[in-house]
Amino acid sequence: MLQIIEFGAVFSSAIFGILLARKHQLDIIGVFTVAFITAFAGGTLRDLFLDRHPLFWIANDHYAVIVFCMALISPFVPRNDVTLDRWLQIPDAFGLGLFAIVGASYSIEAGTSMFIASLLGVVTGTAGGAVSDVICNEVPRLFKATPLYATCAFAGCWAYFGSLYFSGEEELSLTAGIAVVVVARMVAIRFNICLPQPR
Amino acid sequence: MLQIIEFGAVFSSAIFGILLARKHQLDIIGVFTVAFITAFAGGTLRDLFLDRHPLFWIANDHYAVIVFCMALISPFVPRNDVTLDRWLQIPDAFGLGLFAIVGASYSIEAGTSMFIASLLGVVTGTAGGAVSDVICNEVPRLFKATPLYATCAFAGCWAYFGSLYFSGEEELSLTAGIAVVVVARMVAIRFNICLPQPR
Amino acid sequence: MLQIIEFGAVFSSAIFGILLARKHQLDIIGVFTVAFITAFAGGTLRDLFLDRHPLFWIANDHYAVIVFCMALISPFVPRNDVTLDRWLQIPDAFGLGLFAIVGASYSIEAGTSMFIASLLGVVTGTAGGAVSDVICNEVPRLFKATPLYATCAFAGCWAYFGSLYFSGEEELSLTAGIAVVVVARMVAIRFNICLPQPR
Repeated sequence: MLQIIEFGAVFSSAIFGILLARKHQLDIIGVFTVAFITAFAGGTLRDLFLDRHPLFWIANDHYAVIVFCMALISPFVPRNDVTLDRWLQIPDAFGLGLFAIVGASYSIEAGTSMFIASLLGVVTGTAGGAVSDVICNEVPRLFKATPLYATCAFAGCWAYFGSLYFSGEEELSLTAGIAVVVVARMVAIRFNICLPQPR
Repeated sequence: MLQIIEFGAVFSSAIFGILLARKHQLDIIGVFTVAFITAFAGGTLRDLFLDRHPLFWIANDHYAVIVFCMALISPFVPRNDVTLDRWLQIPDAFGLGLFAIVGASYSIEAGTSMFIASLLGVVTGTAGGAVSDVICNEVPRLFKATPLYATCAFAGCWAYFGSLYFSGEEELSLTAGIAVVVVARMVAIRFNICLPQPR
Repeated sequence: MLQIIEFGAVFSSAIFGILLARKHQLDIIGVFTVAFITAFAGGTLRDLFLDRHPLFWIANDHYAVIVFCMALISPFVPRNDVTLDRWLQIPDAFGLGLFAIVGASYSIEAGTSMFIASLLGVVTGTAGGAVSDVICNEVPRLFKATPLYATCAFAGCWAYFGSLYFSGEEELSLTAGIAVVVVARMVAIRFNICLPQPR
């Protein structure tokens, strides 16, 4: 189950990275770099922090081949600027949710406290996008309070822990946690929900 | 003793990070991010480089809870722009000194040479502040020769090694090393001491 | 053999870092930082990703002493702005080639697939330069399609694998791989060869 979710997370994040790179008109090397960083940076930090070796993209070496091929064929897919920004949001939300909950789950498995696990979930979910935003010279979404981003990942991790505590069912809880992140992010974008701003 | 110093380092650095984030009027997510990065980035690099697992903030999971609560209550503390810049210097100097000497001490313990240990001390002391400066769009203090910054951490590490060599007392030497960094940094700021500039 | 190549890689990269820092008129702390990051960042990422401990610059602690001394004497070497840009290209090409092939070789040794090894080769070769470019406020060469940079490292890794597969001779194959990277990079600069640009 975690394998399938992780594959989905890599796939969503790579699509997001490629669309982001195309939006910023990066050349092909830029597309590869942003695709790889978006798909692998968060999980790499998680694996290094938890001392999980080999890293998930070394253990599952088809991930890198898939991302490589996706980046390779991307220039031949026609683009449509009008809808691109909206389309970016869907793989972004899925990448955030899938990576965050997998990160929290691996972290609990490694014996950390729940609070640490929720932080690692947020790091795993947001790091790839944050680094890619820096590369593309955007202010990282991580630091924009509006709409909610890291907060959705944080809430989803606690929904996962709560569900696991009350139901004891791992698969159900994983699904619930991911659903909370994706729905919360979509609702936050749709209604432009934000945290209180500094005075 | 190292535990107490490390707690002080995390505490000082988190205060510094929160004040820095408020100075730059970051929103609450920005405050959390800068507080966590300032408090944990240097030590995380040290632990990864020395292969110390679990990482210090996973082993001591109350650190993250404390930093989280500090960031949470920070918006309710009144701010005073006039004195903020000066106040920033004190936790900054303590964070630099405490982290640098703990880093050097752990490194020696792990069997590295003294020269490598002094470099790791500088990395542990300066990394959190350098990354936070980049996030806040400031030129990192690390790269400003004026006043001395990395040089203070480097000097303090060698003061610690020297004292340890001649006195053999760990606790005394740790205190001496930290004192050298903090005093050197304060003196450097007060008298604007700098390294020679390029021609 | 790998030891000698690694030494050459550190030496070339440190020279490149120091020249780059001087070109951008960084102060002495900037020269140290850029020299260390250029020489050690790529290999450190490789060692962390492959869980090789102690890190190569902790295991070979004379590397850091050498880079430190090179940075220390650099201000006394006269500079010549006209030829500096051209001179930067030679240590840069050697650093790229030596680090990339060592990275690929260590990676194969650690049991990764060839594709993962070629990616790690590219990361090891390009990371130091990319971070240094960011510090010096240049657009990283990594993201400039013109002339070829990451592509040369990638091609050299596959030349190394091919030669190793057909000849079975490690030393010959290492040399061939490095030669491919350096020559490809030089030719790419000379004739300004680039990948196709986005439409």
